[in-house]
Amino acid sequence: MSDVLSAIQDTLEARRSASPDESYTAQLLHKGQDKILKKVIEEAGEVLMASKDGDQAHLVYEVADLWFHSMILLTHHNLRAEDVLQELARRQGLSGLAEKKARQE
Amino acid sequence: MSDVLSAIQDTLEARRSASPDESYTAQLLHKGQDKILKKVIEEAGEVLMASKDGDQAHLVYEVADLWFHSMILLTHHNLRAEDVLQELARRQGLSGLAEKKARQE
Amino acid sequence: MSDVLSAIQDTLEARRSASPDESYTAQLLHKGQDKILKKVIEEAGEVLMASKDGDQAHLVYEVADLWFHSMILLTHHNLRAEDVLQELARRQGLSGLAEKKARQE
Amino acid sequence: MSDVLSAIQDTLEARRSASPDESYTAQLLHKGQDKILKKVIEEAGEVLMASKDGDQAHLVYEVADLWFHSMILLTHHNLRAEDVLQELARRQGLSGLAEKKARQE
Repeated sequence: MSDVLSAIQDTLEARRSASPDESYTAQLLHKGQDKILKKVIEEAGEVLMASKDGDQAHLVYEVADLWFHSMILLTHHNLRAEDVLQELARRQGLSGLAEKKARQE
Repeated sequence: MSDVLSAIQDTLEARRSASPDESYTAQLLHKGQDKILKKVIEEAGEVLMASKDGDQAHLVYEVADLWFHSMILLTHHNLRAEDVLQELARRQGLSGLAEKKARQE
Repeated sequence: MSDVLSAIQDTLEARRSASPDESYTAQLLHKGQDKILKKVIEEAGEVLMASKDGDQAHLVYEVADLWFHSMILLTHHNLRAEDVLQELARRQGLSGLAEKKARQE
Repeated sequence: MSDVLSAIQDTLEARRSASPDESYTAQLLHKGQDKILKKVIEEAGEVLMASKDGDQAHLVYEVADLWFHSMILLTHHNLRAEDVLQELARRQGLSGLAEKKARQE
């Protein structure tokens, strides 16, 4: 299960140099930052709606869309999913309210 | 790197039965769906701002926040990060515009 | 200036019974709540981007889009812009932190 | 009804020079663009939730919050609600799909 994000990340990077005709990701990377951000906020809205609908399968689908488009954004900025996982791993060492406190500083 | 999300997911589940005083996550799970969704949408907004600022370190931080709060939402719905990874793995079999087409149907 | 919102509101209501082929609004009202909400959150994201770009003309344009789509949402719920103006007028009687306090109760 | 937005706009401008201790608006203007944007996107999320809940009174309340915080953002950029109303009035001359077409160009 664990290497899914790395595999997707590799695919996303390969598509940076692909023709926009070849894939949805290549198209979106070609259109640039604002179009990617528009998708990120739109997918966050879809997550909210699926959650309010109480539809578990749809929610999983929309969270997948949200994470996927976050990764396209990372790719745009020459970053990788692993950078995010590393930050999450760092926090996992912290706990609970201590973490919240850290985030607020 | 790979088991970070599973480890966080286990922690989130453990906090479902914790006192709200003990951790930020326990507090948020206790407050319920709308407060969690408010955080998800807020974090998506922060991702947009960090991206527009062109601040890579901040962007990684905010995407981590977005994914983390997505996982709190999954926990609220008795779902796990692995459900999202499985959906992403399924899609990884599909490619490019074929995928977009599939998503639009 | 003042009756613009009422005039738009009247137009929106007239389009509820129009064919989806006739106007953008009729189309969106026909597609239903989730498509309208998707536009609302998307336009909020566009406002954020225009603001970060520091582009005043674009910001005005995107806030207009945001308010317009809010009014389509109100129309979907059989509400009118005047209901919102009335709520804003009510608050205008309150002031500053007293208002914030009132909103938090 | 019509002059509500202008009256609020005047109040917002007066608060730009007020002490942050005196009002919620003065505080938010003092904190700056990112905090205002965070509120705009958060209020858009609240609009989505109130809509999905089908709670009309709550929806009116949240759209009022969204418009109010949009106006704080306009104030931050030395713009006024009237600029948005003027843009909406301009569009009101256009109609339906012609309008959508215009927006896409």
